[in-house]
Amino acid sequence: MFVIGERINGMFKDVAEAVKKKDKEVIRSLAKKQVASGANALDVNVGPSSDNPKEVMEWLVKTIIEAVGDVPLAIDTTKKDVMEAGLSLCRRKPIINSVNANEDKMKPLFALAKKYKASVIGLTTDKSGIPKDSEGRLELAMKIIASAMEHGIDTSDIYIDTVILPVNVAQAHVKEVLKTIRELKVLADPAPKTILGLSNVSQGSQAHLKPLINRTFLAMAIASGLDAAIMDANDKDLLDTAITAELLMERQLYCDSFLDAYRKK
Amino acid sequence: MFVIGERINGMFKDVAEAVKKKDKEVIRSLAKKQVASGANALDVNVGPSSDNPKEVMEWLVKTIIEAVGDVPLAIDTTKKDVMEAGLSLCRRKPIINSVNANEDKMKPLFALAKKYKASVIGLTTDKSGIPKDSEGRLELAMKIIASAMEHGIDTSDIYIDTVILPVNVAQAHVKEVLKTIRELKVLADPAPKTILGLSNVSQGSQAHLKPLINRTFLAMAIASGLDAAIMDANDKDLLDTAITAELLMERQLYCDSFLDAYRKK
Repeated sequence: MFVIGERINGMFKDVAEAVKKKDKEVIRSLAKKQVASGANALDVNVGPSSDNPKEVMEWLVKTIIEAVGDVPLAIDTTKKDVMEAGLSLCRRKPIINSVNANEDKMKPLFALAKKYKASVIGLTTDKSGIPKDSEGRLELAMKIIASAMEHGIDTSDIYIDTVILPVNVAQAHVKEVLKTIRELKVLADPAPKTILGLSNVSQGSQAHLKPLINRTFLAMAIASGLDAAIMDANDKDLLDTAITAELLMERQLYCDSFLDAYRKK
Repeated sequence: MFVIGERINGMFKDVAEAVKKKDKEVIRSLAKKQVASGANALDVNVGPSSDNPKEVMEWLVKTIIEAVGDVPLAIDTTKKDVMEAGLSLCRRKPIINSVNANEDKMKPLFALAKKYKASVIGLTTDKSGIPKDSEGRLELAMKIIASAMEHGIDTSDIYIDTVILPVNVAQAHVKEVLKTIRELKVLADPAPKTILGLSNVSQGSQAHLKPLINRTFLAMAIASGLDAAIMDANDKDLLDTAITAELLMERQLYCDSFLDAYRKK
C-alpha cells in the first residue's frame, strides 16, 4: 500500500509550535521518523490557523526536503497560491491534496497538476456536501475522472478519496465507503487509485479505541481494494495490519518473515 | 458475529490427554473459558487418533453440557455414527460440522439435520477437492443449498464454509474466499449464512505472526459479509477485531464503549 504519513500538519500541536518558532529540527525529525516507519510519501499541511500560509508551506517543504529529499510530498491545502508554492519546490512527483467535484475547484488545480506533473487526490464531495451512499460518491468520482481526462490528466495519476467520516457520528457511511472503493475498481478502466484519510474514521472515539478502529477499518478497506492511505505511519500495529492485509490480497508474495521482507524493500 | 470456539478438539494436546485420562475438569474449564470469552457455540471434535470416537464424543458432549448446558454445540466429525451420538445428546439446536457437496455425504447428514433440527455447515469441496476460484466454490455452495432444500432444510439453517487454506501454501485462494463470501450474499435469496474455520489461514505461518494474520483476515472477511467463524474465542485481540469490524459494518449500534457493550450482551 502507498502510505502517506499524516503527521506534518499544523493541526498537531508540536507542528504548530515548530512553525511558530521556526524550529526545523521538529519537522525534520517528524519527516525522518515517518519515512523510517514505512511512509512512502509525506502529507504537508500548514494547519488552519496560519496567518501566512504560503510562507509556512514553503518553509515546511524546504525543511522536509532537507531531511528526506527523495520522498514525494502531498501538498495539503485548499488555497491555490499555497498549493503552487508547495508544488513548485517539490523535487519528486508531488501529490495535490486535494480537489473535489466542483468545477471551479478542479479547473485551476488540474491546471497546476499538468504544470507540475503532479498526482491528484479527488474527494467525492461537492457543493451539496458528502453523499450519504455509494451511488452518490461514485457519481462524483466519475465527474472528477471525466474532468481530469478533459484536462489531459491520466487516470493513473488520480487518487479518489471516498471520504470516510467518523464512525461515532456517521456509522452508516462506513460500509458505503467500502462499497464505493470496491465499485470504483470495476466502473472505470483503467481504474483510478483509491485513497482514504484513515484517522478520520476514529475521530471522536475514545482514545484507547482509536488504534483498534483504525487498523480494523484499514484491513476492511484493503479487502475492498484500497490502494493508498493518509495515515499514522508511526503506528507499527497499523502498518503490520496493512502489510498483512496486502499479503492476504496477494499484492505481496508470501514468505515466512513477510513483515521484515516488506520493510526491507 | 456468531463465534464457535475451536478449542475442544482432540488435535490439541491438552484435549487429547484429557480424553485419554477421562479428565473432565480440563474439558469443563475449556468450555467455560471459551464461553466467558465470548463464544456463542462450541465445536466438539474427538481428534484424529481416537480408537472409540463414538464413546469419546458422547463423553465430551456430556462433560461440556455439565459445564455450560445452554451453549449450542457444533458436532465436528466425518463419521455418521459419531455425529448422531453427539447430536442426540445436545439440548440446544446443534450444528452439524460438516457436509460437503458430495451427494453421498449430504443425503445421510441432511437426514440427521432434519431429525435433530440441526443447522448444517456445508464445505465448498467435493470429490475433486477444493476449487481454486470463487466460481467453483459458488457452484458447490449452490449444490449444497439445492440439496438442503430438497431435504426440507431451511436455507437459514445452512452455513456455507468457503474453505480458507493456509496463506503460506495457497496464497491465491485467500481473495477467492473473500469474493465467494461476498457473492453468496447476492446469489441466493434468502442468502445462506457464511462461516470460516479461521485459524486455518495462518496454519504453518510463524507462531508470532499467526494472531496478526488471523485477526487481519477476520476483519477482511467481515467486510466481505462473513456471519460466523470457528475460531480461538480466547484470543481477546481477535474478538476485539471482530466486534470492531461488525461495528464498522453497522451490525451493532455505535456507542462510546462498544467493546464493553458487546460483551455485556
